[in-house]
Amino acid sequence: MSKINRFKYRMSKERLEMFSDGVMAIAITLLVLEIKIPSHEKVETAGGLYNYLTKIWPSYLGYAMSFLQIGIYWSNHHWLFSFITKTNHVFNMLNVLFLMAISFVPFTTAIFSDFILSHGHFNAAVTAYCTGLLMPVITVCLVVFYAGYKRRLMPATLKQSFLNEQYMKLAMGLLMAIASVALSFSYPVASIVIIAVTFLIYLIPPTPPEYEEGAIIQEQKHH
Amino acid sequence: MSKINRFKYRMSKERLEMFSDGVMAIAITLLVLEIKIPSHEKVETAGGLYNYLTKIWPSYLGYAMSFLQIGIYWSNHHWLFSFITKTNHVFNMLNVLFLMAISFVPFTTAIFSDFILSHGHFNAAVTAYCTGLLMPVITVCLVVFYAGYKRRLMPATLKQSFLNEQYMKLAMGLLMAIASVALSFSYPVASIVIIAVTFLIYLIPPTPPEYEEGAIIQEQKHH
Amino acid sequence: MSKINRFKYRMSKERLEMFSDGVMAIAITLLVLEIKIPSHEKVETAGGLYNYLTKIWPSYLGYAMSFLQIGIYWSNHHWLFSFITKTNHVFNMLNVLFLMAISFVPFTTAIFSDFILSHGHFNAAVTAYCTGLLMPVITVCLVVFYAGYKRRLMPATLKQSFLNEQYMKLAMGLLMAIASVALSFSYPVASIVIIAVTFLIYLIPPTPPEYEEGAIIQEQKHH
Amino acid sequence: MSKINRFKYRMSKERLEMFSDGVMAIAITLLVLEIKIPSHEKVETAGGLYNYLTKIWPSYLGYAMSFLQIGIYWSNHHWLFSFITKTNHVFNMLNVLFLMAISFVPFTTAIFSDFILSHGHFNAAVTAYCTGLLMPVITVCLVVFYAGYKRRLMPATLKQSFLNEQYMKLAMGLLMAIASVALSFSYPVASIVIIAVTFLIYLIPPTPPEYEEGAIIQEQKHH
Repeated sequence: MSKINRFKYRMSKERLEMFSDGVMAIAITLLVLEIKIPSHEKVETAGGLYNYLTKIWPSYLGYAMSFLQIGIYWSNHHWLFSFITKTNHVFNMLNVLFLMAISFVPFTTAIFSDFILSHGHFNAAVTAYCTGLLMPVITVCLVVFYAGYKRRLMPATLKQSFLNEQYMKLAMGLLMAIASVALSFSYPVASIVIIAVTFLIYLIPPTPPEYEEGAIIQEQKHH
Repeated sequence: MSKINRFKYRMSKERLEMFSDGVMAIAITLLVLEIKIPSHEKVETAGGLYNYLTKIWPSYLGYAMSFLQIGIYWSNHHWLFSFITKTNHVFNMLNVLFLMAISFVPFTTAIFSDFILSHGHFNAAVTAYCTGLLMPVITVCLVVFYAGYKRRLMPATLKQSFLNEQYMKLAMGLLMAIASVALSFSYPVASIVIIAVTFLIYLIPPTPPEYEEGAIIQEQKHH
Repeated sequence: MSKINRFKYRMSKERLEMFSDGVMAIAITLLVLEIKIPSHEKVETAGGLYNYLTKIWPSYLGYAMSFLQIGIYWSNHHWLFSFITKTNHVFNMLNVLFLMAISFVPFTTAIFSDFILSHGHFNAAVTAYCTGLLMPVITVCLVVFYAGYKRRLMPATLKQSFLNEQYMKLAMGLLMAIASVALSFSYPVASIVIIAVTFLIYLIPPTPPEYEEGAIIQEQKHH
Repeated sequence: MSKINRFKYRMSKERLEMFSDGVMAIAITLLVLEIKIPSHEKVETAGGLYNYLTKIWPSYLGYAMSFLQIGIYWSNHHWLFSFITKTNHVFNMLNVLFLMAISFVPFTTAIFSDFILSHGHFNAAVTAYCTGLLMPVITVCLVVFYAGYKRRLMPATLKQSFLNEQYMKLAMGLLMAIASVALSFSYPVASIVIIAVTFLIYLIPPTPPEYEEGAIIQEQKHH
């Protein structure tokens, strides 16, 4: 009986991972659709196609930044699931919330790209972009804290020190994301600096999960 | 011979699940494309970008509601396939009808979000949204009733009492969805209440399938 | 050495199937994006949202027809790969041509839906739709004939009679699709009848592949 | 311990392949969305729907060219991963850069299709298209050189001669892509010739990876 249950859990986790990969792959690819193809009139107004394609550089910047952000989330999601070894209904729903936040990024990116250069809308464009990045941070915190609470969906042999370190990193990421939104209303440049710093931190490879002595044998049972 | 057939069935089921996951992942992600990026004129008319982004709150609501609905369908589809263990051509086609209904949700969601605030179109916007939610319910009923009829595509050892319970839940969901569409023409607020209630019911975790005594050994043969 | 090659071939086939499933899942879901969200002005001109949503029935018809067509192609593609057991570079490229034809269907469907009701464009709308359906037929013929020629990518034990039957069906489907395009310029209603008939034929479940005596043991070696 | 690490690496590689397949499948299918559905006014101006559909032939050409290009990249990506047997964080990020370049192709294709016939914008349209093709070449070079440097992510038994041959081909492809962009500003027709030639070269099937004597046994350990 217990064997079959474990098997079911593992399948569930795999399908959850694949669905998440699918949604992240689509959200990342939809970013390009937010770079609009200009009408011939717009191109003439801009002084030709070369000029137009140069002028819309914020669209390229927004595309590249958001693509990398979602790419890093995809990479980290994969790594998270190396020590989240089970799932349940609540966890599935929290993961759906995370995907909802990721899928929203193309919208806030397009707002950022289209309005960052109009000085009257600079602050609002940065607020939109930072809010778009805050929501995945909030939801990924929910996912990890729910899975980690009393090792609900993590192996008992996972080292507490390793888990504490992850909690610390997530809390810091959350604080920085909140700060970037809060500052954007008055000091949007400060928000951009925070995003750039967060971005560099995320590029650091994640540490592999650590297990207690004898964990290898224990771990086998979870598969 | 029979071994090979069973293998083929299982493969088929897996590919059907993966295709369904793919379509649901795409439909859920396309929701964001229905939130339009405004022109600079529209933003000026709305009194600035902050005002504009606040004014389009129905778009965020529609996005969140439909994302969760499709997310719940995805989760339930996964659970359904823990006791639908075989497929056939008719079943594949019924599942395609279900996916057709799910993929249509971004359209009815956009109609809802864009017209819910214009009082002359309030009823029609709710009718569109409720119809968009009714169609997946109808098609999921077809899928389950077809698979369950005389245990066509379900193991013989699945408890009848468990199956009856699922039929009852589906019939109730169908009635509520029909009621929400019927009421929307005159009492759209009542329809919204029904949708909210259905939504909360769906959040309850599904019960795991129950099998007759000795079912575990029988079950192994189906894999 | 030969063992590793066989393994590589099988992997290749699986990834080709998954890529094809992905493209078909996306093409089928993109159909909904071709149903445009109307502006408030358009809705007022149509006499309200209820009237507008009724008036655009060709969009729903086009959506449903093309969704089912791609769904049937997906189902048949799966069945084809139960007896196409190997792949090579040329075959991969022919399959890419098939996917190119499938991905084009949302465009011809949108042309059909948007122009079928304007009498001046009725013929052209039907020509566009029929051409959109002809191209997948042509490319699926290329895929099957290439794979079947001298059993290039099919097991030697597959019955010739079974293969001949498939060739016959494909040739007939091709003739009907060509006829529907040719007739559309002058007799578009005849084209629509042909499409409806083809559609009903496609709904018939495909016959399982037949192998020579002793084929089961031979077949194992291909995996 | 080392066994578990190897296992983790293999999983990682599989998920990276699947994510890449997903992004490429989506990018290839989004190409069709860049072929715009005309308004009724535009169709009347063009002299009817038949005339309009004929007039937009560059859209079909752009669609077909880019579809085949991404299809060939997908096929080659698969082949690359037959001898890239491990992954790491930096490699994941480089692969994300490659996917970012692939996902951008629908934008440059749409620019090409929409402006290639307006003589004033011919050069710029070709520059855009060639730049769109240059970026995947640059990033695929980064991916392969990073994985191959000191056999970082490739088996030690892979023949150096085979690897050198691949480096040579990549370097040549890179030079041709740079030349096509450089020439496009003054001699866009020369750029088109280079693209056509590159395209034909890419159609040649890739050679299977070669291993040192006794490599088969060594290779097994990597799985």
